[in-house]
Amino acid sequence: MDLYFSPLACSLASRIAIYEAALDGETQFHKVELATKRYDGNADFWAVTAKGQVPALVTRNGSLLTENAAVLQYIADLAPTTGLAPPPSDHARYELQQWLSFIGTELHKQVFGVVYNPLAPAEAKAYAVEQALPNRLEYLAKTLAPRADGRAREFLVGDTFTVADAYLLTVLNWATTVTDMQRWPDIVAYHRRMIARPNVKRAFNDERAMWSGKP
Amino acid sequence: MDLYFSPLACSLASRIAIYEAALDGETQFHKVELATKRYDGNADFWAVTAKGQVPALVTRNGSLLTENAAVLQYIADLAPTTGLAPPPSDHARYELQQWLSFIGTELHKQVFGVVYNPLAPAEAKAYAVEQALPNRLEYLAKTLAPRADGRAREFLVGDTFTVADAYLLTVLNWATTVTDMQRWPDIVAYHRRMIARPNVKRAFNDERAMWSGKP
Repeated sequence: MDLYFSPLACSLASRIAIYEAALDGETQFHKVELATKRYDGNADFWAVTAKGQVPALVTRNGSLLTENAAVLQYIADLAPTTGLAPPPSDHARYELQQWLSFIGTELHKQVFGVVYNPLAPAEAKAYAVEQALPNRLEYLAKTLAPRADGRAREFLVGDTFTVADAYLLTVLNWATTVTDMQRWPDIVAYHRRMIARPNVKRAFNDERAMWSGKP
Repeated sequence: MDLYFSPLACSLASRIAIYEAALDGETQFHKVELATKRYDGNADFWAVTAKGQVPALVTRNGSLLTENAAVLQYIADLAPTTGLAPPPSDHARYELQQWLSFIGTELHKQVFGVVYNPLAPAEAKAYAVEQALPNRLEYLAKTLAPRADGRAREFLVGDTFTVADAYLLTVLNWATTVTDMQRWPDIVAYHRRMIARPNVKRAFNDERAMWSGKP
């Protein structure tokens, strides 16, 4: 497989999933410069995908897959014993899809899709950080609050690390750079637990070493 | 089942899917006033979902499901013979998820999530309509251009109407109210075909009759 990524962008979630699924042996990673749409040095990223966005995954059958929700579910389904996604026949699979959608639409695109867009007007960025983000983190904090029995809610879906956690921790990495997360201690505790996972650490360190300073 | 909807909002796609799947006999429809978060007259919508958003579906097992991508796949899977979603084991299922994500993140939330948000600054709305929307419609128009053999690409995924079409036609309904769609004739032709489907027409007419004039 071929994963087109930009260091510490949302494609980090795909790399984490690939590491967790132990599929890195069959995956080539191609670094994309989103500003210039070049990859592996000077190759044309537009020729890979007309969207010009990461993640873009060339799957085992040679077809191109884009969009986090689709790429992450594809990777998870290649390694069903890992629990990275509940089986498609399980009702919890829809919960996973619900979280992937919430993270993608409400947090990623409505907040950071604006913050990291050089063309977006300043007023839109201020609104995204000062109003949209806290509003969504309030909802998330409620979800991550300890359960009735006092135990922390460890993962978003069920009792295992899923690709929804991989996506959420990636977006929370960005959130820590634009707002004071200490207002939401349950989110901070969740984020710390997630980034302490060995495969998450490895993925993060691999991409941090390649990061140019621009998300 | 119980579907919480707002007339002509994105929950229209869920109604269309329910009609196409012939599940309306087992579904109660609850009209939500998004501005006041009341449903069925004066009931408290926050008590149904902490998100305060439509669609919200109480599924057959009594649990709550939110987010278009999840609700639409759930409904489709209840009626597998309709082709509303490719089977989960089929590679085309990831294509469906890719489209649901693109429509949800790029078109719905990054454009209309701003346009229809009374709190969003005017500059953000102008950017959404004048730059973000045409940019995404350009990509969509390429996808919907006739294939090499000259035939129109009838549906987004495969050769049947899927829940991705239901979602896209709903978002295109809104697009026609904010921009001149004639710039993208292949999108206009696709949209016309979709809204001519009997179940789409019925869903649209049912909700238009309840529409108060505010999306």
